Amino acid sequence: MAITVVGSVAYDSIETPAGRRDRCLGGAATYFSLAASYFTDVRVIAVVGEDFGPAQEAVFNARGIDTRGIERTSGKSFFWEGSYLENLNEAKTHNTELNVFASFNPKIPDAYRDSDFLFLANIDPVLQRRVREQMPGVKLVAGDTMNYWIKDHKPALLEMLKGLDLLLINDTEARMLAGNNNLVQAARSVLALGPQTLIVKHGEYGATAFFGNRSFPAPGDKPNHPFRAPALPLEEVVDPTGAGDSFAGGLFGYLASQPEFTPAVFRRAMFYGSVMGSYACERFGTERLEQLSREEIDERFVVFRELTHLD
Amino acid sequence: MAITVVGSVAYDSIETPAGRRDRCLGGAATYFSLAASYFTDVRVIAVVGEDFGPAQEAVFNARGIDTRGIERTSGKSFFWEGSYLENLNEAKTHNTELNVFASFNPKIPDAYRDSDFLFLANIDPVLQRRVREQMPGVKLVAGDTMNYWIKDHKPALLEMLKGLDLLLINDTEARMLAGNNNLVQAARSVLALGPQTLIVKHGEYGATAFFGNRSFPAPGDKPNHPFRAPALPLEEVVDPTGAGDSFAGGLFGYLASQPEFTPAVFRRAMFYGSVMGSYACERFGTERLEQLSREEIDERFVVFRELTHLD
Repeated sequence: MAITVVGSVAYDSIETPAGRRDRCLGGAATYFSLAASYFTDVRVIAVVGEDFGPAQEAVFNARGIDTRGIERTSGKSFFWEGSYLENLNEAKTHNTELNVFASFNPKIPDAYRDSDFLFLANIDPVLQRRVREQMPGVKLVAGDTMNYWIKDHKPALLEMLKGLDLLLINDTEARMLAGNNNLVQAARSVLALGPQTLIVKHGEYGATAFFGNRSFPAPGDKPNHPFRAPALPLEEVVDPTGAGDSFAGGLFGYLASQPEFTPAVFRRAMFYGSVMGSYACERFGTERLEQLSREEIDERFVVFRELTHLD
Repeated sequence: MAITVVGSVAYDSIETPAGRRDRCLGGAATYFSLAASYFTDVRVIAVVGEDFGPAQEAVFNARGIDTRGIERTSGKSFFWEGSYLENLNEAKTHNTELNVFASFNPKIPDAYRDSDFLFLANIDPVLQRRVREQMPGVKLVAGDTMNYWIKDHKPALLEMLKGLDLLLINDTEARMLAGNNNLVQAARSVLALGPQTLIVKHGEYGATAFFGNRSFPAPGDKPNHPFRAPALPLEEVVDPTGAGDSFAGGLFGYLASQPEFTPAVFRRAMFYGSVMGSYACERFGTERLEQLSREEIDERFVVFRELTHLD
């Protein structure tokens, strides 16, 4: 089944203890779609400026990603500059230029309308909601957000959350959204806002899924315990940019590739998310995600099993 | 097989978002031995003052813990006062009174000398080494330490580490000891200092074991991947004091209860460590650890499996 993703396609300038890259291809929708492309068909909705050229286009094309929904307009693409010199778990933002993103009004190509899955990457919740409303036929809608929207755009965010099946946010965001420092209690509050399933991302410690009573997949006859996928202890974290979006892409991509949602499928999807997040960190920007094979992905899946399973 | 543990038996005054307790029974050796007592015979070496009375003694007796190695002397017992008001993952120390611990010279009762397992809880590494040298016949030696010893007593600590099979420390301590922020690289450096196995504790995110080439248990024909046990997302963390020592007690207790060390046994021991750590947090001080049943422990083991396993 095909996934449509709406979000940023951007340029990033990144500094980490491993070095520096200027204006490399980035953006949440870029990382998400590259990661998901190893599992299923992916279609992107975004806006870019005149600086988005054939070289960037080729990155998407090489992975068979549908870019007909990437609108070209005059001006410059979204730009982010940040560093991880003191803490690889948290970026320090030096500069954000919205550029063409400031007046982004997502348009959905007709060819995207039969998508079964929709991912609303971290953008203005008003836009996320607008896209979601234009695709009433999707089977599963997941989304991401960030502290900025939680803090300063809460009413719009709460409206958007009502339309989500699955929300992916990090620890700080979950606690901030719920106004509660206890993660289990915070998860329960967030699940009451709309999403049936909440995945809380813990950076280098992995991610935990919390399930509501009406969660997909139906928990079956098992109690609705949370499920945790670890992150891989990596020999070198070159650049953590996009790891969370790559996690989402691996998770959603695997889900979309499966004939049905079961608890076992969802758990495997969490592991595939972690696999893609771990690969994203191994090189700068999207370098590693552009060059993977399904064999490498499945090899690492086995490593995650070894890392966590008793037998 | 019996475990001898040397460490603090103390009084703690603790404040957390859930409330406050003054001068409750605490100390690393106390938490460790209570947790381990559900799996095997435990013998304690410590020193206490005149304030250690029948009520405290009864806590050990009720769990069948051998206290003949707890020396009574004039003065007051070790005392710690701390709070977790802003961050449940890290205690803020308000007061530490060594009291009788300042002149502690551990003496090993003859009845302890046939112990097969030795746990050196977090005390002066000179004392840890002295105890270790007096028990040459033990089969497995594990130990803990803290930032204070790493920072200001490194030569003594390095000597002590040479005598350990297994070291348990937290993320910050591992990075500080290795002088390396990457956990995988830090683990390799620490393993080169003596211990064959390193367990890095991540607080609410669990713990990861890293294995050296000569690790017990022998890794068999599997690659020497790390192994991660999660911590349980808890509805309420009443008091995290002693969670790390309870983890160590559950882990070491389970290992000592098994006829042989295999990778599978070690992995299960990690889970039992997490089980005991999670119970320790549910009430103030040692309250919950005093009142467990083996059935409750095994029930929670199953919850940990659900939390982590694909099938």
